[in-house]
Amino acid sequence: MKELKDYVRSIPDFPEKGIIFRDVSTVLQDRDGFKLAVDSMIEKLKDVDFDVVVGPEARGFIFGTPIAYALNKAFVPVRKKGKLPCETIEESYKLEYGTATLEAHVDSIKKGQKVVIVDDLIATGGTLKAIVNLVEKLGGEVVKICCLIELPELNGKKALEGYDVLSSISFEGK
Amino acid sequence: MKELKDYVRSIPDFPEKGIIFRDVSTVLQDRDGFKLAVDSMIEKLKDVDFDVVVGPEARGFIFGTPIAYALNKAFVPVRKKGKLPCETIEESYKLEYGTATLEAHVDSIKKGQKVVIVDDLIATGGTLKAIVNLVEKLGGEVVKICCLIELPELNGKKALEGYDVLSSISFEGK
Repeated sequence: MKELKDYVRSIPDFPEKGIIFRDVSTVLQDRDGFKLAVDSMIEKLKDVDFDVVVGPEARGFIFGTPIAYALNKAFVPVRKKGKLPCETIEESYKLEYGTATLEAHVDSIKKGQKVVIVDDLIATGGTLKAIVNLVEKLGGEVVKICCLIELPELNGKKALEGYDVLSSISFEGK
Repeated sequence: MKELKDYVRSIPDFPEKGIIFRDVSTVLQDRDGFKLAVDSMIEKLKDVDFDVVVGPEARGFIFGTPIAYALNKAFVPVRKKGKLPCETIEESYKLEYGTATLEAHVDSIKKGQKVVIVDDLIATGGTLKAIVNLVEKLGGEVVKICCLIELPELNGKKALEGYDVLSSISFEGK
């Protein structure tokens, strides 16, 4: 019986030397793998009281929307700067070189809504912390952060201290 | 009773004068709207014999993955050039100014697999035609193309002649 972890493709030295890239496309392109992955995240969230799934472009959409659909929640996309057509708020965060900016529509989350943030992978937690800040600026309450994959060596949970971070599988290395 | 169409936000003169942008983010950010939208597409596909949903970055992921999950199919992402980590094939297509290039992993679709292409909106059909070409180069068979929204005045169905194009709602104008 193939386990969820077996569907992830590991690519050494991508995008640069010393990094092992964990590729989820091999999970998705297998119907059993995709079902296992989404079900593993739904299992962690099915008894959680919340209103909205928030997911970042683009891989956060892949796991966030089936979870939102299956649990009958709303889905709010967080996008790279310049992609959303109406008024937005933005949040910038540091990358290894330079910064990135994420945006959400100002009317996307209502004050007091309970939010679960979903992404494919938690590494240093930088992107997820930026999303937490966006949600809180809009008046939402982050009740869980749920990722398919965790890379514990990169200390993402430390960057997200005070928040409940869930993951289905974890990998050694960076 | 609010209908599916009522959840779509129309933004006049965006991204340029004379264009009415149909914004699906207001569909997604309402749990009833999101369910209506995905259910309307699933209803059209539930009796179709197919193996894989193919969806383009980024809004194609939003509708493609819940459909794939609910119907227990695989999901293959088509991405902008340079985003996929393994060997890809690519397909370029014309935009109003310049060209765009889409990629799929070479191992993503197996020869003979039946494919449904899902996106949020069909306008001129240019992006969808490029995806059809990618799928066929990989040996897949396109059995349906399914979008939430159609803009009939832009003649997308003409660009996709010979393929079965389905949509849940249609809007006048460009």
